[in-house]
Order: sequence, then structure tokens, then C-alpha cells
Amino acid sequence: MVNLEFIALAHQMADSAGKILRRVYRMPMVIDIKGDASPVTIADRSVENALRDFIEAQYPDHGIIGEEFGSIRPEARYQWVIDPIDGTRSFIAGYPLFTTLISLTYHGTPVLGLIDQPISGERWVGAYGIESVLNGESVRTRGCTELSKAVIATTSIDYFTPEQSQQFKKLRSSCANGVLGGDAYAYAMLASGQIDIVVDAGMKPYDYCALKPVIEGAGGLITDWKGQPLTIHSDGSVLAAASKELHQAALAKINS
Amino acid sequence: MVNLEFIALAHQMADSAGKILRRVYRMPMVIDIKGDASPVTIADRSVENALRDFIEAQYPDHGIIGEEFGSIRPEARYQWVIDPIDGTRSFIAGYPLFTTLISLTYHGTPVLGLIDQPISGERWVGAYGIESVLNGESVRTRGCTELSKAVIATTSIDYFTPEQSQQFKKLRSSCANGVLGGDAYAYAMLASGQIDIVVDAGMKPYDYCALKPVIEGAGGLITDWKGQPLTIHSDGSVLAAASKELHQAALAKINS
Repeated sequence: MVNLEFIALAHQMADSAGKILRRVYRMPMVIDIKGDASPVTIADRSVENALRDFIEAQYPDHGIIGEEFGSIRPEARYQWVIDPIDGTRSFIAGYPLFTTLISLTYHGTPVLGLIDQPISGERWVGAYGIESVLNGESVRTRGCTELSKAVIATTSIDYFTPEQSQQFKKLRSSCANGVLGGDAYAYAMLASGQIDIVVDAGMKPYDYCALKPVIEGAGGLITDWKGQPLTIHSDGSVLAAASKELHQAALAKINS
Repeated sequence: MVNLEFIALAHQMADSAGKILRRVYRMPMVIDIKGDASPVTIADRSVENALRDFIEAQYPDHGIIGEEFGSIRPEARYQWVIDPIDGTRSFIAGYPLFTTLISLTYHGTPVLGLIDQPISGERWVGAYGIESVLNGESVRTRGCTELSKAVIATTSIDYFTPEQSQQFKKLRSSCANGVLGGDAYAYAMLASGQIDIVVDAGMKPYDYCALKPVIEGAGGLITDWKGQPLTIHSDGSVLAAASKELHQAALAKINS
């Protein structure tokens, strides 16, 4: 399902995105507010256009789902799912935590994921059946198995429903320690063994598809809040953990 | 009040802290939880010890206020106020947003401030009466004057009282856009023209003293939530803004 040409293309796309983003990072820019109250800049749109051009040139029969310009060819078996700037709020604030997310799904399931932070020069890549890497070196989660020892992160408390807020609070108070913010970067830090649980809600396919192959290829597990595998049709709740045991404990706590 | 030797010492201290922090960043480490539920690592303690040694060697009659080892010589006119790792949660999570904060106060008022991020290699320095710099280059706030155009950041929603939460929400909803997290890094981004308002509560002198000279030397204004100047005796509420006009508007909103 994943071949080396797909992975090579994802790298080319991320290289191209990184060039644009390094040029405009911390430069004055107009911020528009979208219908869902989230911010967007010209950089989001330029990068997504560049990424779409790569796909159209090489795989004109593949589908594309992008944050800024929507879906085309939704009937295709292969769908590229892209977020030009995940963490636009961090990008605007000048925090080097935003990332470009590139994923390939096969019949709706993410089989390739790439997370790129172009300022620090960090790139995580994962693909179905192989070990995930950060800049070419294998990464592993910390393998934490107990909530009471876990470092937990969340980005999206603004997107939680009141019920989800309660569920999150139960989980948060069972963990050793927590951090706010980070978006996809938090999931990359889970793959790299810094964070043990990341929990979010209200996510879209372009927010979470790239995360699944990276986390699973690093020994972690990522599902929705019911424990169902993530696909392009998931409900937007996301729970990632450093090990199966920790994932099970977090799932039990959130649904208790 | 500030002389070049004080500034040179602050640089030496930050160099020393950075060496330690770059060595231990993203390495496995034990996390202790303090009485106020905040995390602390051996890195926090090693860095604070190193910083205190510099002060004891060069200015044995100056006071010191540090996050991990408390106060000595509180009667001295000059007090060094230091936070070895501001944003320990970011440090633990592997986010390069934590900083080392070094400040000198004179009769309780911060007259020198240094904010150092040792992974990205960014160092902001401000001192009473001179222009603030980032790695030697002058920095200025964006000069934003209207709430409706402002980017707002906050770190410490966990530390807000219920009343402060309400005050914050009023202000947040008047701004264009917001970001969570960042600790002192958010204030550095205000000085650098990325963020326009930063608001926090429950801060300690070692959290905010270094921020004042940096922000004021970049054209911004920073006070408590009543508009009072920050000193080592302030109540821990902090409101920073990119311009006097914006500060006044934010203050009015928060106290409306």
C-alpha cells in the first residue's frame, strides 16, 4: 500500500512547504478569521497550493483533502490529506511548534504520515509496517504504562463540549503532569518519548491522519475516544498513548 | 543603577545555564512534583545552583530570590531574581519554549532583565533606559493599539481564580486571536512584535521581574491587573501590552 515513491513525494512536498514557511515566519502578515473562528494567513494558502500541485503532477488520479481548499476526487482509493500549517495560532505567535502535516490514506485509513517543523528542522515520518523516524533516526515512545506516571498534553480545550471537558478533567487529574498547546507537535513528542498521552477533540482528518502512522510506528497507539481506529471518517476525538496498556487505562478513565 | 558589569554577568550566567540545559534537554529525567503541584527536575536545581554561584562570587552583598532555593539577603538594595527554567512543563514536554530568566532589581524594581532560550539560541536583554535587544539586534513591539486587532496569549489559566477567569474571558473575546502556553516566551514574542497582549495571574517575582525591562525597552508596557508597576512585592497578576493605548484598553476591559 505504501511504496517508496509515495514517501519520496511526501519529503519533496515537505521540503517545498518548509522553504515557504521559513521565508514568512515572524514576518508581518494579514490574519483572516475563518467561519469556525480559527485564523488563517496567506502562508496557509500558498503552502497548500504548492502541496496540491505536487500531487496533481505525480498522482492525478489520487484524491486530496486539504484544510484550506477542501476535497477533490473523494471516490479515489488513495487520498492525500494535508494541513499546510497545523498550529496556525503558534505560527502567528512566533512559536516554533507549528508543523506541516502530510498523510496518505488507503480506503480511508492513514498508511503514511509526515510531520515537519521547518524552523527547528525536525521531520517525523511513519508508514504502515515500518519504524517511525525523526530526521532518519528511529524514534520510540517512552513506553509508559501507568496514568500516575504519565505526562499528558492537550491543544484544543476550546473545542471540547462540556461533556468532553469533564471527561478530559478526569483523565488529566489522574496523570502526573500536563502541558497545554502544541497541536501535532505534541503527538510528535509522544512518538519521541517526551509526552505519554495526548488528547484532543474537534479535530479534522487533516489534523490527525498524519499522526497515526508516526505514532504507531514508534510503539504508541492512537484512536478516537471510543477506542475505534482513526480513519478519514472518524468523529474528531483523538486519544494517543505511549503504550497499549496506557491507552487502555486512559480510555477507561475518559469513559468512566 | 544598571552598569555594564551587571549586564555582562547576566550574559555569563545565561551562557552557563544554556550549557547545562542543552545537555539535558529531551534526556530521560525524574520529575518531582512540588507543594504547589508544579513539576521540577534536577535540571532546575543544577541551573539555579550554578547561577547563584556566579552572584555569590561577584556580588556577595547582593540579595538573591530564586524559584528553587528561596531568598537570601532580602534587605539588600540589589536583588537578583532568577528562574532557572521558566516553563518547566514545556521543558519536560520537549517544547523549545522554556527559558532561563535573570533579573536585577533595585529597591524592588526590575532594572535589568534577560530571557534566554538555549535550544533556538535566542536571548532577549533589556535594561532601564536602553533599547531591548534580541541577540544584539534592537526589538520593538508591533505597536498595536486596538483590542480588535490584537493577538493575545496566556499561560496560566490553571492559576486563575474564578473571578480572574471571568475577567480573562472578557478580554480574550475582545481580541482578534489567541494562543495558549508559552510562559515567558510569550512576553519575549510580545517584545519581538508577534504577540500584542499577554495576561497571566499567580505569577511569582522570578516569573515576571525579567520581563519588565525587556518589554518596556521594546516600547511595550507591563503592570499588574490594576495598572500598578511591577515590583518584587506585586500580587502576581500580570498584563503586558504592545503599546500604552492597548494596555489601557485591556486594563479597562479586564476591570469592566
